Amino acid sequence: MSSYQKTTVTATARTELHDLLALTGAEISINSLPAGAGIPFVHAHRQNEEIYGILAGKGKAVIDGENVALAAGDWLRVAPAAKRQFFAAESEGISYLCIQVKANSLEGYTQDDGIIVED
Amino acid sequence: MSSYQKTTVTATARTELHDLLALTGAEISINSLPAGAGIPFVHAHRQNEEIYGILAGKGKAVIDGENVALAAGDWLRVAPAAKRQFFAAESEGISYLCIQVKANSLEGYTQDDGIIVED
Repeated sequence: MSSYQKTTVTATARTELHDLLALTGAEISINSLPAGAGIPFVHAHRQNEEIYGILAGKGKAVIDGENVALAAGDWLRVAPAAKRQFFAAESEGISYLCIQVKANSLEGYTQDDGIIVED
Repeated sequence: MSSYQKTTVTATARTELHDLLALTGAEISINSLPAGAGIPFVHAHRQNEEIYGILAGKGKAVIDGENVALAAGDWLRVAPAAKRQFFAAESEGISYLCIQVKANSLEGYTQDDGIIVED
Protein backbone atom coordinates (compact mmCIF):
# COMPACT_ATOMS: atom_id res chain seq x y z
CA MET A 1 0.00 0.00 0.00
CA SER A 2 1.21 3.52 -0.76
CA SER A 3 2.61 5.49 2.14
CA TYR A 4 -0.15 8.04 1.64
CA GLN A 5 -3.62 8.50 0.17
CA LYS A 6 -5.28 11.83 -0.65
CA THR A 7 -8.86 12.80 -1.50
CA THR A 8 -10.71 16.08 -1.95
CA VAL A 9 -14.07 16.49 -0.21
CA THR A 10 -16.68 18.72 -1.79
CA ALA A 11 -19.96 19.77 -0.22
CA THR A 12 -22.33 16.81 0.09
CA ALA A 13 -24.67 15.59 2.81
CA ARG A 14 -22.11 13.02 3.98
CA THR A 15 -18.68 11.85 2.88
CA GLU A 16 -17.08 8.83 4.55
CA LEU A 17 -13.29 8.68 4.40
CA HIS A 18 -12.53 5.14 5.64
CA ASP A 19 -12.56 3.48 2.24
CA LEU A 20 -11.51 6.56 0.24
CA LEU A 21 -8.28 6.83 2.24
CA ALA A 22 -7.80 3.18 3.28
CA LEU A 23 -7.94 4.20 6.94
CA THR A 24 -7.01 1.52 9.49
CA GLY A 25 -7.38 3.37 12.80
CA ALA A 26 -10.45 5.55 12.33
CA GLU A 27 -13.57 6.25 10.34
CA ILE A 28 -14.09 9.94 9.60
CA SER A 29 -17.23 11.40 8.09
CA ILE A 30 -17.91 14.97 6.97
CA ASN A 31 -21.59 15.76 7.45
CA SER A 32 -23.96 18.62 6.69
CA LEU A 33 -27.50 19.12 7.95
CA PRO A 34 -29.65 21.94 6.55
CA ALA A 35 -31.46 24.38 8.86
CA GLY A 36 -34.20 22.62 10.81
CA ALA A 37 -32.95 19.11 10.05
CA GLY A 38 -31.74 16.40 12.42
CA ILE A 39 -30.41 12.87 12.36
CA PRO A 40 -33.63 10.81 12.54
CA PHE A 41 -32.47 8.39 15.23
CA VAL A 42 -30.65 8.20 18.58
CA HIS A 43 -27.54 6.03 18.56
CA ALA A 44 -24.75 4.71 20.77
CA HIS A 45 -21.67 2.58 20.10
CA ARG A 46 -20.30 -0.73 21.29
CA GLN A 47 -16.55 0.05 21.27
CA ASN A 48 -16.03 3.37 19.55
CA GLU A 49 -15.39 6.79 21.04
CA GLU A 50 -16.69 9.53 18.75
CA ILE A 51 -15.18 12.99 18.42
CA TYR A 52 -17.26 15.66 16.73
CA GLY A 53 -15.79 18.91 15.37
CA ILE A 54 -18.10 21.69 14.18
CA LEU A 55 -16.81 23.18 10.92
CA ALA A 56 -19.55 25.75 10.24
CA GLY A 57 -23.02 26.80 11.31
CA LYS A 58 -24.75 25.82 14.50
CA GLY A 59 -27.01 23.27 16.10
CA LYS A 60 -27.12 20.99 19.09
CA ALA A 61 -26.42 17.49 20.30
CA VAL A 62 -28.69 15.71 22.72
CA ILE A 63 -26.49 13.40 24.82
CA ASP A 64 -28.16 11.13 27.37
CA GLY A 65 -31.06 13.57 27.30
CA GLU A 66 -28.95 16.71 27.84
CA ASN A 67 -28.92 19.53 25.26
CA VAL A 68 -25.40 20.60 24.24
CA ALA A 69 -25.24 23.75 22.08
CA LEU A 70 -22.81 23.51 19.15
CA ALA A 71 -21.25 26.16 16.93
CA ALA A 72 -18.23 26.43 14.62
CA GLY A 73 -15.02 25.76 16.58
CA ASP A 74 -16.62 23.44 19.11
CA TRP A 75 -15.19 19.95 19.65
CA LEU A 76 -16.97 17.21 21.53
CA ARG A 77 -15.93 13.76 22.75
CA VAL A 78 -18.75 11.27 23.26
CA ALA A 79 -18.18 8.03 25.21
CA PRO A 80 -19.23 4.81 23.45
CA ALA A 81 -22.32 4.08 25.54
CA ALA A 82 -23.73 7.63 25.53
CA LYS A 83 -27.00 8.00 23.61
CA ARG A 84 -26.62 10.81 21.09
CA GLN A 85 -28.55 12.65 18.40
CA PHE A 86 -27.57 15.70 16.32
CA PHE A 87 -29.62 18.59 14.99
CA ALA A 88 -29.03 21.73 12.95
CA ALA A 89 -30.43 24.97 14.35
CA GLU A 90 -33.85 26.04 13.11
CA SER A 91 -32.34 29.13 11.48
CA GLU A 92 -29.02 27.77 10.24
CA GLY A 93 -27.47 24.54 8.97
CA ILE A 94 -24.47 22.80 10.52
CA SER A 95 -21.41 21.09 9.04
CA TYR A 96 -19.41 18.76 11.24
CA LEU A 97 -16.82 16.04 11.35
CA CYS A 98 -17.44 12.77 13.13
CA ILE A 99 -14.31 10.78 14.00
CA GLN A 100 -14.83 7.19 15.21
CA VAL A 101 -11.95 5.47 17.00
CA LYS A 102 -11.81 2.44 19.25
CA ALA A 103 -11.93 3.65 22.86
CA ASN A 104 -8.67 3.15 24.77
CA SER A 105 -6.78 2.16 21.61
CA LEU A 106 -4.27 5.03 21.59
CA GLU A 107 -0.91 4.25 23.18
CA GLY A 108 1.87 6.81 22.66
CA TYR A 109 1.29 9.97 20.62
CA THR A 110 3.16 13.05 19.45
CA GLN A 111 6.61 12.94 21.10
CA ASP A 112 5.97 9.46 22.53
CA ASP A 113 5.20 7.96 19.12
CA GLY A 114 6.89 10.37 16.73
CA ILE A 115 10.42 10.11 15.38
CA ILE A 116 12.26 13.22 14.26
CA VAL A 117 14.00 12.16 11.06
CA GLU A 118 15.89 15.35 10.26
CA ASP A 119 15.79 19.03 11.07
CA MET B 1 -15.95 10.23 33.73
CA SER B 2 -18.74 12.19 32.08
CA SER B 3 -20.25 10.68 28.98
CA TYR B 4 -19.11 13.72 27.02
CA GLN B 5 -16.58 16.57 27.05
CA LYS B 6 -16.81 19.76 25.00
CA THR B 7 -14.29 22.51 24.21
CA THR B 8 -14.25 25.52 21.90
CA VAL B 9 -11.17 26.06 19.74
CA THR B 10 -10.22 29.61 18.80
CA ALA B 11 -7.51 30.63 16.35
CA THR B 12 -4.06 29.79 17.68
CA ALA B 13 -0.94 28.25 16.16
CA ARG B 14 -1.78 24.83 17.63
CA THR B 15 -4.47 23.38 19.87
CA GLU B 16 -4.16 19.79 21.11
CA LEU B 17 -7.42 18.10 22.07
CA HIS B 18 -6.24 14.89 23.78
CA ASP B 19 -6.14 16.30 27.29
CA LEU B 20 -8.83 18.95 26.78
CA LEU B 21 -11.37 16.28 25.82
CA ALA B 22 -9.94 13.26 27.71
CA LEU B 23 -9.56 11.39 24.42
CA THR B 24 -8.67 7.70 24.66
CA GLY B 25 -8.51 6.64 21.01
CA ALA B 26 -6.89 9.59 19.21
CA GLU B 27 -4.91 12.77 19.52
CA ILE B 28 -6.26 15.60 17.39
CA SER B 29 -4.48 18.90 16.83
CA ILE B 30 -5.72 22.00 15.03
CA ASN B 31 -2.78 23.78 13.42
CA SER B 32 -2.15 27.00 11.52
CA LEU B 33 0.95 28.02 9.60
CA PRO B 34 1.28 31.56 8.20
CA ALA B 35 2.22 32.17 4.56
CA GLY B 36 5.77 31.07 3.87
CA ALA B 37 6.11 29.02 7.07
CA GLY B 38 6.76 25.32 7.51
CA ILE B 39 7.17 22.74 10.24
CA PRO B 40 10.93 22.88 10.90
CA PHE B 41 11.55 19.12 10.91
CA VAL B 42 10.72 15.91 9.07
CA HIS B 43 8.98 13.28 11.17
CA ALA B 44 7.59 9.75 11.09
CA HIS B 45 5.73 7.60 13.62
CA ARG B 46 6.26 4.28 15.34
CA GLN B 47 2.64 3.06 15.56
CA ASN B 48 0.35 5.88 14.58
CA GLU B 49 -1.45 6.54 11.32
CA GLU B 50 -2.01 10.25 10.78
CA ILE B 51 -4.94 11.76 8.94
CA TYR B 52 -4.68 15.40 7.87
CA GLY B 53 -7.68 17.51 6.86
CA ILE B 54 -7.15 20.95 5.33
CA LEU B 55 -9.59 23.46 6.83
CA ALA B 56 -8.50 26.62 4.99
CA GLY B 57 -5.74 28.06 2.84
CA LYS B 58 -3.16 26.08 0.94
CA GLY B 59 0.27 24.55 1.16
CA LYS B 60 2.00 21.25 0.61
CA ALA B 61 3.19 18.11 2.30
CA VAL B 62 6.46 16.44 1.39
CA ILE B 63 5.99 12.71 1.95
CA ASP B 64 8.96 10.41 1.41
CA GLY B 65 10.39 13.16 -0.82
CA GLU B 66 7.24 13.61 -2.92
CA ASN B 67 5.43 16.97 -3.05
CA VAL B 68 1.68 16.70 -2.39
CA ALA B 69 -0.30 19.91 -3.02
CA LEU B 70 -2.88 20.68 -0.33
CA ALA B 71 -5.88 23.01 -0.29
CA ALA B 72 -9.09 23.40 1.73
CA GLY B 73 -11.20 20.24 1.45
CA ASP B 74 -8.25 17.89 0.97
CA TRP B 75 -7.83 14.89 3.27
CA LEU B 76 -4.68 12.84 3.50
CA ARG B 77 -3.79 9.57 5.23
CA VAL B 78 -0.11 9.07 6.02
CA ALA B 79 1.25 5.65 7.00
CA PRO B 80 3.26 5.49 10.25
CA ALA B 81 6.70 5.02 8.67
CA ALA B 82 6.32 7.69 5.96
CA LYS B 83 8.62 10.69 6.41
CA ARG B 84 6.52 13.85 6.32
CA GLN B 85 6.85 17.63 6.54
CA PHE B 86 4.22 20.35 6.10
CA PHE B 87 4.44 23.84 4.62
CA ALA B 88 2.09 26.76 4.01
CA ALA B 89 2.13 28.26 0.52
CA GLU B 90 4.40 31.28 -0.01
CA SER B 91 1.35 33.46 -0.72
CA GLU B 92 -1.17 32.05 1.75
CA GLY B 93 -1.32 30.37 5.15
CA ILE B 94 -2.84 26.98 5.87
CA SER B 95 -5.02 25.64 8.68
CA TYR B 96 -5.28 21.90 9.13
CA LEU B 97 -6.29 19.11 11.44
CA CYS B 98 -3.93 16.30 12.33
CA ILE B 99 -5.58 13.17 13.71
CA GLN B 100 -3.28 10.52 15.23
CA VAL B 101 -4.65 7.01 15.72
CA LYS B 102 -2.96 3.67 16.26
CA ALA B 103 -2.68 1.93 12.88
CA ASN B 104 -4.93 -1.14 12.53
CA SER B 105 -6.74 -0.37 15.79
CA LEU B 106 -10.23 0.14 14.34
CA GLU B 107 -12.49 -2.90 14.45
CA GLY B 108 -16.16 -2.34 13.57
CA TYR B 109 -17.49 1.10 12.70
CA THR B 110 -20.74 2.83 11.77
CA GLN B 111 -23.37 0.08 11.39
CA ASP B 112 -20.96 -2.60 12.66
CA ASP B 113 -20.30 -0.75 15.91
CA GLY B 114 -23.33 1.50 16.25
CA ILE B 115 -26.54 0.68 18.09
CA ILE B 116 -29.77 2.41 17.12
CA VAL B 117 -31.43 3.20 20.42
CA GLU B 118 -34.67 4.72 19.16
CA ASP B 119 -36.08 6.30 16.04
